[in-house]
Amino acid sequence: MRRSERLPIITKLLLDSPGQVISLTDLAARFGAAKSTLSEDLSIIRDAFAAQRMGRIETLAGAAGGVRYLPELSPALMAATVHELCEALSDPQRILPGGFLYMSDLVSSPALMSRVGELFASCFRRVGEPDTVVTLETRGIPIALMTARALNVPLAIVRRTSRVTEGTVVTMNYVSGSAKRIETMSLSRRALPPNARVLIIDDFMKAGGSARGLVDLMGEFGAEVLGIGVLIATAEPKQKLVPEYLSLAVLERVDEEQRVVHVRPSAWVEELDTEPRV
Amino acid sequence: MRRSERLPIITKLLLDSPGQVISLTDLAARFGAAKSTLSEDLSIIRDAFAAQRMGRIETLAGAAGGVRYLPELSPALMAATVHELCEALSDPQRILPGGFLYMSDLVSSPALMSRVGELFASCFRRVGEPDTVVTLETRGIPIALMTARALNVPLAIVRRTSRVTEGTVVTMNYVSGSAKRIETMSLSRRALPPNARVLIIDDFMKAGGSARGLVDLMGEFGAEVLGIGVLIATAEPKQKLVPEYLSLAVLERVDEEQRVVHVRPSAWVEELDTEPRV
Repeated sequence: MRRSERLPIITKLLLDSPGQVISLTDLAARFGAAKSTLSEDLSIIRDAFAAQRMGRIETLAGAAGGVRYLPELSPALMAATVHELCEALSDPQRILPGGFLYMSDLVSSPALMSRVGELFASCFRRVGEPDTVVTLETRGIPIALMTARALNVPLAIVRRTSRVTEGTVVTMNYVSGSAKRIETMSLSRRALPPNARVLIIDDFMKAGGSARGLVDLMGEFGAEVLGIGVLIATAEPKQKLVPEYLSLAVLERVDEEQRVVHVRPSAWVEELDTEPRV
Repeated sequence: MRRSERLPIITKLLLDSPGQVISLTDLAARFGAAKSTLSEDLSIIRDAFAAQRMGRIETLAGAAGGVRYLPELSPALMAATVHELCEALSDPQRILPGGFLYMSDLVSSPALMSRVGELFASCFRRVGEPDTVVTLETRGIPIALMTARALNVPLAIVRRTSRVTEGTVVTMNYVSGSAKRIETMSLSRRALPPNARVLIIDDFMKAGGSARGLVDLMGEFGAEVLGIGVLIATAEPKQKLVPEYLSLAVLERVDEEQRVVHVRPSAWVEELDTEPRV
């Protein structure tokens, strides 16, 4: 097989399994090629991705040696993704009675959620090595799943009601931040490894009651929360029930009368250096 | 830029957006290369993928011309995926009181669900062109999302309770097939286009009550159901409440006493021709 045939195949093997190590020995056997030849192939792919800021190809030396692909969104693509999100959100057709916004179509778009997942993975890979992504059903699941995929870790779905098929669960009451209602969340004992290091991902944060609840639930599991990521946070209340979180967009206000949605990218997005590298 | 640098980048652009058409004009502008050169690059990628049965690269001629990647699992990878699923399911540790099986970890594995999504997409792309994948919350969502991603269509999540953020919803009562309980499902009016052609994807089918409910709900939306796919179906009752469905595995029996899970690949999986092409 020629190099030009190997390159697309190796690229696909890497991209199909983000974060998973592919051993050089396996690749050599598959292609009937020398390891040195494959190392050259991998250098070409690595350099091409690096030049285009399209994610990282990482080579691991030693007995467990091999290569893996780490999805990483360029600052320019991060900014474009958030701007696209804000533009979609500002469509006045989304305004529902009571000033709520319809956004199920956005969290149900696999193309957008794939990119958002890679965006969160790019941001949170730096804060440590999360071993599980945690979310509260339902609308956070697509974002959380795509983030988990980009990080190559499992997902843990916290339920609002406990189900027999979850086995032994830990159930906790919490107070929803804005409506001040008592709500319940439960998570299967089996959903997290011991001493888990988790990342919390959700679609929306108003006062932060659910996020606070999830943080407390993680405490019950002895898990460490490395970060909290949400698609959209409201500007008010300014003081959330969790000290720190990363949001992609800020919902300033929904004007039902004038039918205008005031939404903008979060400050950190506007500060990204999106100039192409020289 | 040399061909060897372009090949990994073009491959990534295609794989990052399954089903989406990338125009040859855009590619030519991006790389500062002639369209004829890029056509050659694409032929190399197409032929390499075809030889390895790694999915289809499709070239579309005309004004809307361009190229797209359609994920397609080879029969060998389909069989391997289902066998892996069955092996995981037969772990006696999964047995819960009452003969239930813990399987949340499987539907929460992004790596497994990506492959299952591509498997369903490969099977159902043949029955027509679904424009939406429909599922019932919660455990079906990861499989349905990954199937929607592979088909490049949106997801519609049917809720068990109606939420204010869903806008106007259609709510329907249905009878759960095995427990004979009355349950509720509701879907936002906005979740489906007019005259939708949908694919129903779920994790588990026993009597088929939820699937039947989803089919009836689709009737209320004037949508056509092109197919039903489930991860696992139970062997009993043999007669399901829907006439036709595709399952990957069959759960024969859970023996709580002996702590044995009897599960096997569906007949169609065992009949796949998994010999490599000559």
